[in-house]
Amino acid sequence: FRKESFNAAHRLFNPGWDQATNDRVFGKCAFPNYHGHNYDLFVTIRGEISEEHGFIMNISTLRDIIIEKIISRIDHKNINLEVDFMKGKIATTENLAIAIWNELREPVLKAGAQLHCVRIEETENNSIEYYG
Amino acid sequence: FRKESFNAAHRLFNPGWDQATNDRVFGKCAFPNYHGHNYDLFVTIRGEISEEHGFIMNISTLRDIIIEKIISRIDHKNINLEVDFMKGKIATTENLAIAIWNELREPVLKAGAQLHCVRIEETENNSIEYYG
Amino acid sequence: FRKESFNAAHRLFNPGWDQATNDRVFGKCAFPNYHGHNYDLFVTIRGEISEEHGFIMNISTLRDIIIEKIISRIDHKNINLEVDFMKGKIATTENLAIAIWNELREPVLKAGAQLHCVRIEETENNSIEYYG
Amino acid sequence: FRKESFNAAHRLFNPGWDQATNDRVFGKCAFPNYHGHNYDLFVTIRGEISEEHGFIMNISTLRDIIIEKIISRIDHKNINLEVDFMKGKIATTENLAIAIWNELREPVLKAGAQLHCVRIEETENNSIEYYG
Amino acid sequence: FRKESFNAAHRLFNPGWDQATNDRVFGKCAFPNYHGHNYDLFVTIRGEISEEHGFIMNISTLRDIIIEKIISRIDHKNINLEVDFMKGKIATTENLAIAIWNELREPVLKAGAQLHCVRIEETENNSIEYYG
Amino acid sequence: FRKESFNAAHRLFNPGWDQATNDRVFGKCAFPNYHGHNYDLFVTIRGEISEEHGFIMNISTLRDIIIEKIISRIDHKNINLEVDFMKGKIATTENLAIAIWNELREPVLKAGAQLHCVRIEETENNSIEYYG
Repeated sequence: FRKESFNAAHRLFNPGWDQATNDRVFGKCAFPNYHGHNYDLFVTIRGEISEEHGFIMNISTLRDIIIEKIISRIDHKNINLEVDFMKGKIATTENLAIAIWNELREPVLKAGAQLHCVRIEETENNSIEYYG
Repeated sequence: FRKESFNAAHRLFNPGWDQATNDRVFGKCAFPNYHGHNYDLFVTIRGEISEEHGFIMNISTLRDIIIEKIISRIDHKNINLEVDFMKGKIATTENLAIAIWNELREPVLKAGAQLHCVRIEETENNSIEYYG
Repeated sequence: FRKESFNAAHRLFNPGWDQATNDRVFGKCAFPNYHGHNYDLFVTIRGEISEEHGFIMNISTLRDIIIEKIISRIDHKNINLEVDFMKGKIATTENLAIAIWNELREPVLKAGAQLHCVRIEETENNSIEYYG
Repeated sequence: FRKESFNAAHRLFNPGWDQATNDRVFGKCAFPNYHGHNYDLFVTIRGEISEEHGFIMNISTLRDIIIEKIISRIDHKNINLEVDFMKGKIATTENLAIAIWNELREPVLKAGAQLHCVRIEETENNSIEYYG
Repeated sequence: FRKESFNAAHRLFNPGWDQATNDRVFGKCAFPNYHGHNYDLFVTIRGEISEEHGFIMNISTLRDIIIEKIISRIDHKNINLEVDFMKGKIATTENLAIAIWNELREPVLKAGAQLHCVRIEETENNSIEYYG
Repeated sequence: FRKESFNAAHRLFNPGWDQATNDRVFGKCAFPNYHGHNYDLFVTIRGEISEEHGFIMNISTLRDIIIEKIISRIDHKNINLEVDFMKGKIATTENLAIAIWNELREPVLKAGAQLHCVRIEETENNSIEYYG
């Protein structure tokens, strides 16, 4: 895997509910002025190891894809307001992992490997893995 | 020391400057919609070790002070908008460490020890220590 | 996954063997007066993501289950003497992982998800995973 | 510094008090059947750097001293019952740090350096430093 | 799993290419005088848990196998020049994981378990897993 | 502090001694074909906090100084052969910390702060601090 990190603000809020229901379901994660995290993102790919260079994919190619497709669009941003691939979705780590998978799948495929797993650690105690 | 953690949103912004100057000085930390961090707070006290119970101060007393005075007021909050002891200050980690020191000094003294150091890790790469 | 931690004492000892055999098989882990660990417990669940709230299961529900069913019964306890779900079993991390799986499976199911993996790290060098 | 780790059982208990007072002061740390920790021990020395070999003291000499004087006597042991340099002391991390300092000071001096600090992390949230 | 660590020097270099091609493909990892890493090696085995001793395999047996077959042959060595099981292979982490798998599979089998996964973390950001 | 990391090869060797003496003093660290580490470098500065921007020094200025003066000259290099500020010195972590201090002191001073401490972690078990 390759690990990259980003810092972002978010809140958990379902606009179809009133504030009281949001508070009951999401607790302090629904506070209106946002809070934030240092997210750690682990991207795992799989594939054949090339005999010529001994890699599945050059790790710097993978890093470039993650930075271009994800980090540059989410780092130091507000996930609810500014991240286009999260538009209209509740900003849970579950939904974030699926959205990141959808952004990375094709670029990784074009680079000759297969996306295997997207893992996001919101804190060291809470983590989500998505396998497609 | 005792370590506690909190998640909060912030941005770096000097209201006496225009947005262009803020952008030049603070870079992506000045983005208007906030970003956030998992902050780790390390509070170190010093003092004599009681012969009766073998502690400087019961670690659970220290934990209660930190939670009451700091964590309950900043966790899942927006430092720029909602944290009263940061009112009117630029939300840097340096200013946060001093403000937390000022909140903790007296309660720790009343509990029979002296505050020695407030350390805040904003990310694993950036950290501030304040010794009063 | 959700991570919780607990501190407990244990020793490795098969009562069907004499002390010499226990010493030979378990080495210093068989010492009669117990030693202890900071155990880290990682519980992974799987399931469908609800469209309404964007979760598989509210992480605070999962935390409550783990604390009620496991942590409250094992933290600051002696695994050999005081933990009822380990009665009659050798206190290895392997047996502990299986016992914790058996305690968590049903409550997780009732909360609408499936238990996927129980991982216990006894030290940062030794870890066990159980998948049911 | 040099870091070594050990696993040990302990409980906090003042034999001059009854069980109720111990429970009130030490909470679940006073449970009668012991609990335990993975302790991390950090020993810092200071001194002049030898021009001949570029060290203050060969790190393997320091490791040998720590293992002989501390680790071999406390690892996989019960601090209350089996560790002679903790006899008659309440098994807090504070008292443990002082006792370890007293065991290490002379051997480090004989090896040509000065003991600077003994730090013990009982958990990642609780830590004690002793400077003599 | 069992975790062991080793420190080694390496460079990435395909002798069938000229230096310019190596530089283009491997970047600063192709520098001629080597660089190095603290590698973390995680070996996972699987199998039935013995009722007699509560283990799949005694963790100290697994540690001895890893130290004899891998660590003693690679720690403080130069992977390109001195590690016989990497002879003629490009010193990527991918190839290293496969070579370590091949060295460990049989000794683990003889000890009564099955090798499940070899994971190598070259840095905390780059990691490889091999499942045979 | 600001943390940066680099990967480098080295060996411990005093050219004024024969190989047998080097082997006796430095053990496996004297092996002729080099080994390597992921070094973590922690640079601490101190100074007054500016009221205008709330920093001692902009952390990105400090990062740029560390990268220009240290990381770009040592990362993926061989400390014995290629790092000019280590010429003629035994490649111990102690000597490395002093040499890095000497490289950073003036640039940090010019940027308006004072260098306080240079810490290098060679592995998570071995670490050196230098205070000038």
